[in-house]
This record gives sequence, C-alpha cells and structure tokens, in this order.
Amino acid sequence: MIVRQLQDAEQTNRRIVSPDGNWESTRMLLKGDNMGFSFHITTIYAGADFLMHYQNHLESVYCISGTGEVETLADGKRYPILPGTLYVLDKHDQHILRAFTEIKMACVFNPPLNGTEVHNAEGAYELEAATITD
Amino acid sequence: MIVRQLQDAEQTNRRIVSPDGNWESTRMLLKGDNMGFSFHITTIYAGADFLMHYQNHLESVYCISGTGEVETLADGKRYPILPGTLYVLDKHDQHILRAFTEIKMACVFNPPLNGTEVHNAEGAYELEAATITD
Repeated sequence: MIVRQLQDAEQTNRRIVSPDGNWESTRMLLKGDNMGFSFHITTIYAGADFLMHYQNHLESVYCISGTGEVETLADGKRYPILPGTLYVLDKHDQHILRAFTEIKMACVFNPPLNGTEVHNAEGAYELEAATITD
Repeated sequence: MIVRQLQDAEQTNRRIVSPDGNWESTRMLLKGDNMGFSFHITTIYAGADFLMHYQNHLESVYCISGTGEVETLADGKRYPILPGTLYVLDKHDQHILRAFTEIKMACVFNPPLNGTEVHNAEGAYELEAATITD
C-alpha cells in the first residue's frame, strides 16, 4: 500500500505550478505507481479563463470546492461548476475552464501522467514527460 | 463531455448503500462511460470498522473530509486518515478501515466497477455486476 499526504506532497516536486499562472497541481499518484491512472489535486486560481485540449488523455474532474464553469468549444455549451460537479472529457473535448473563485479539483487521467507535464501550445499534455521521485 | 452532479446522482440508483451499514457510495463514473476507471464519492459512517480485500481491482482513495485510519493486515501497520490523505491499494492489500468520524472519500477503481457492486464475504468486489443507468 502507498500512503501520501497532500500537505507533504505540496512541499516536494510533486507540486507543479503552471507557467501561465492559471493553476497548480499536486500529482499524488503517477504512471510509475502502476495503477493505470494518475490522480492529482489541482487548484485553479480565481479569475483563470483558459483553453485546454487533451488530445492524448481522457480526464475526469471532480470539484471539491469553489465555483466556475466549463464550456465545450464544439457546441458553445456552458456547464456550472460547484462542489459536487464531475465533468468528464471522454471525447478529447476542447474546453474552456473559468474559475469564479479558487477551485480545488480531484483529477484522474488515463493514461497516467509521468510527472512534470504542463500544457503545450494547443492545451494538451504530451504523452512523454519527466518522472517525479520523492 | 459528460457532466454529473453529486447531489443529483445521490437521488438515483447510482447511490449504493452497503448491506452491512458501514458505508454508502455514489458511483459518479462507471465502466459504461469507457474511461478505463470508475470514480465514486464514498461516505464511511462514523464508527465503521471493517475488512476489505479487493482481489480483482486496484483502488486509490483520497480523503476529502473526516478522520480515521487504515491498517494493512500483512504487517499490522496503521496509517492515519485525515483530509488530504491518499492511500493506494496497489498490491490488492487486505486492509481494515476505521472511521473515527464520518469520512468522505474520492475513490478510483481500475478496472472500473460496473455499477451495483457490494463487498462479498471476502471483502472483494466481483468482476461482474449489474450496470446502472440514469
């Protein structure tokens, strides 16, 4: 069994801060853990408004706290995000995330992230990236 | 994109209440969603103290709120559970979960659950079970 504590992991290189100033994510579980998925606690900063497009990954996002909205570009639909909302990018959907307040999210990726990924110019994570060790 | 709200899902047959009175789990994302994992928001009732042994699944468990402990039977080690704790059953570990208060958890299973699983006599979920539709 693996046991990790968010407050400890935030003090290590598991905490990734996005270069664009929109978010930070503490990667609690990664590819090297061999679970077939990765698990991250992600903070979206209040006021963030940005495009993502996970061309290489499926992702589910559960809102623990905070409010915002997610918009799918293909149809322009907007869905409110509040505590208890799950949104699931099952079709590599291009989407815009807007944080009205700071949002805390539990994110699951398949395939699992390696470790240090940040979004590329198209809002995707590459399939290959450096691993993280404690 | 799929969007579901916990408070709505709790009013449907996505909410599974364990026959043993230890927990309930709202299954937000299941095998039929084709994400390669399932995602559940699980409540462990205060005072629960029970054995589990997921022989057929890998699971990660993240504590959103509440306190308790998890004990691995193979070595008798006990680990505190508090908000921010992730424990990961990467070796099909036999484990005892104890809830000192009500605990809310975000649980991820690989392979994904079908829908209606509850623990069998050995504390495992079977690989086959009925699906849930909204």
